[in-house]
Amino acid sequence: MRETDGAPTGPASQQGMRRANLALVLGVIARAPRSRAEVAAGTGLTRAAVSSLAEELIGAGLVVEEGPAAPSGKVGRPGTALGLNPDGPGGLGAEIGVEHLGACVVDLRGEVRAWHRQEIRNRGRSPAAVMADLAELVRRAAAEAGPRPAGLALAVPGLVGIDGALLQRAANLDWEEVPLVAELRLALRAAGAGELAELPLRADNEANLGGLAELWLGGGPPHFLHVSAEAGIGSAIVVEGRLLRGARGFAGELGHVPVHPDGPRCACGAHGCLEQYAGESAVLRAAGLEGIRGDWVALLAERAEAGDEEVRQALAGAGAALGIASAGAVNLLDPAEVVLGGGYAQLAPWLLPAMRAELAARVTVRPWADERLTVSRLGRRGPLLGAAAGVVRSVLADPGRLRA
Amino acid sequence: MRETDGAPTGPASQQGMRRANLALVLGVIARAPRSRAEVAAGTGLTRAAVSSLAEELIGAGLVVEEGPAAPSGKVGRPGTALGLNPDGPGGLGAEIGVEHLGACVVDLRGEVRAWHRQEIRNRGRSPAAVMADLAELVRRAAAEAGPRPAGLALAVPGLVGIDGALLQRAANLDWEEVPLVAELRLALRAAGAGELAELPLRADNEANLGGLAELWLGGGPPHFLHVSAEAGIGSAIVVEGRLLRGARGFAGELGHVPVHPDGPRCACGAHGCLEQYAGESAVLRAAGLEGIRGDWVALLAERAEAGDEEVRQALAGAGAALGIASAGAVNLLDPAEVVLGGGYAQLAPWLLPAMRAELAARVTVRPWADERLTVSRLGRRGPLLGAAAGVVRSVLADPGRLRA
Repeated sequence: MRETDGAPTGPASQQGMRRANLALVLGVIARAPRSRAEVAAGTGLTRAAVSSLAEELIGAGLVVEEGPAAPSGKVGRPGTALGLNPDGPGGLGAEIGVEHLGACVVDLRGEVRAWHRQEIRNRGRSPAAVMADLAELVRRAAAEAGPRPAGLALAVPGLVGIDGALLQRAANLDWEEVPLVAELRLALRAAGAGELAELPLRADNEANLGGLAELWLGGGPPHFLHVSAEAGIGSAIVVEGRLLRGARGFAGELGHVPVHPDGPRCACGAHGCLEQYAGESAVLRAAGLEGIRGDWVALLAERAEAGDEEVRQALAGAGAALGIASAGAVNLLDPAEVVLGGGYAQLAPWLLPAMRAELAARVTVRPWADERLTVSRLGRRGPLLGAAAGVVRSVLADPGRLRA
Repeated sequence: MRETDGAPTGPASQQGMRRANLALVLGVIARAPRSRAEVAAGTGLTRAAVSSLAEELIGAGLVVEEGPAAPSGKVGRPGTALGLNPDGPGGLGAEIGVEHLGACVVDLRGEVRAWHRQEIRNRGRSPAAVMADLAELVRRAAAEAGPRPAGLALAVPGLVGIDGALLQRAANLDWEEVPLVAELRLALRAAGAGELAELPLRADNEANLGGLAELWLGGGPPHFLHVSAEAGIGSAIVVEGRLLRGARGFAGELGHVPVHPDGPRCACGAHGCLEQYAGESAVLRAAGLEGIRGDWVALLAERAEAGDEEVRQALAGAGAALGIASAGAVNLLDPAEVVLGGGYAQLAPWLLPAMRAELAARVTVRPWADERLTVSRLGRRGPLLGAAAGVVRSVLADPGRLRA
């Protein structure tokens, strides 16, 4: 009695079944090392089928024999445990921030094997110049880490089309219609990293990747709204364990939800957007710190910690605006949680009280509790982690694709 | 390189394949009558497999032989066309409104075979009393129509849990925590319709069902926001052709998105909700028609049509508030369209100009065009049609379930 996506679009086939079963077996092994017998028991496949599928996964470098499996309490000799290969294909992540660049490698087990961050003012620089610096950072991260990457994903502070290739607009970089993937490919070749330029490449909005990192690594529930800040405000909407991207890939622009419709004019042209109350410039202005340079989040956290009343007031005002916008989003989306991430995670102690008060006052047609507003433990590492982890996830979800 | 739902949870099986292929064949036939050869060509299945699957679908009463298929231009005798059985299992829909009840039957082909609507003031009546009237209406609709129903779905103006059984709250009926499915089952038995009480029963929010009707019957795109009004304001968020229900089933409460956070107090306890500017009471108050009885939508449309300036101003005000709330939703969700449905469809000529102006002024970080705001042609028939059509869709999506 539930609506569905409609009828399937092709016949089920033996080949499709084997590919699905490869993913099934790999998925069980990814949760914890398991003997072949345990994999068979956990999947419902025969032991013969599991052995054959495991052989293929080992051949592809995805799985390794780890020595004897933990004793299961059953009689008989324990089988050899199969585990993910830490030196199998990994994920390469890259990040363009308004004030930094980043590159990292995550292995199949989710361990960070290389992590580079460089503070650099990118606002107003040309995409080509920024990409040249980024490519060098990516090259170094890839060279340093053991696993050869299966793909490269790039986080950017702007609207990326659903194809993952074209940047529509990044207001805080002053970039418009930039072919990100093509530019990055060119820059990698110029940096002497031609083999990285041949990888599957994909770009995504940093807030999307931050939300996905929270889902995959941060223990987020299957339905949540992730609200984050770098220079601008972004959000990621996760529904049934998947990111909501919208018709064109531009979903999640919580920063431009009207909070006070007659409020100050925003850089986007509208009036009273959330960014006018809780964005970097607005908070610094309210705190009397307009025009400062450097890490605004660290600066505000330090001053608030030290008891600076003007800063605390500014953060409380931002929290109230975040609460109003989030309340509208909760009424619309019914998430299980609202997660404060990115730069906001570090500022949470001073944002949360006002934000909680607004949510409690405005989410009233359904049950809501203060505990549903949580703070990400990934914070500002989220987008870069999410980029690399997404590559690994796509390998685990369809290992058959690597060989195809 | 795209995130996925993760690994599959069970092995693919022969039985699962046959069930999937039954749905595949039925889906092709549902789009238009087809010969067995055409079905084979369209699905990639062998003719022998199609014949066997078609036999099973005919045996289940879902498919009938329709006579010769249309000439395809190919040499040879055309095969017999297979079509959906108009007297096969249909969908039974029921609706509880604040001021009406409804019941209808839709057949496998989507034709309405029975349609009953009764004007009755339900506000403040007990669930049991309302269900008794509704059961009688449902019994009559089912008795009148040819197809035996495969299930019954109920539309209600309130928050329904994700299990489709329990009403959390219907503010405009003054109901809380009503076990809708259990109550309707009881009422059907008491009305002498015991066989209907045995059907799969499911309840849903009327705005959700209105949105699904738009998706299935109204030609809505795969991503849209459907905004509708009866006594309250509801919305349905459709993403990739599926309804977004949220963690607990309470998504879509656009009526309680804050429009002017310091505005008048809403019945929900919050301040400045959209309902305080565009809900029935608010618009009637602004039009100087507070307290009138009867069909408020028809009355406002009639007066606006006749040139009543106060009514036109009231509707323009409602349109502006709808535009502000919708702009926030568009920035958050990136739908391909915003569709004005339910009672708003009839009031669209006077709502649209102000609504379009607000959307244009506030959806600026991405392309937006006036034409993306459209009007439903289903209007207030949506929720009841959606209820019945959902039952039919679930039969078409998994015909194997009927026999299981």
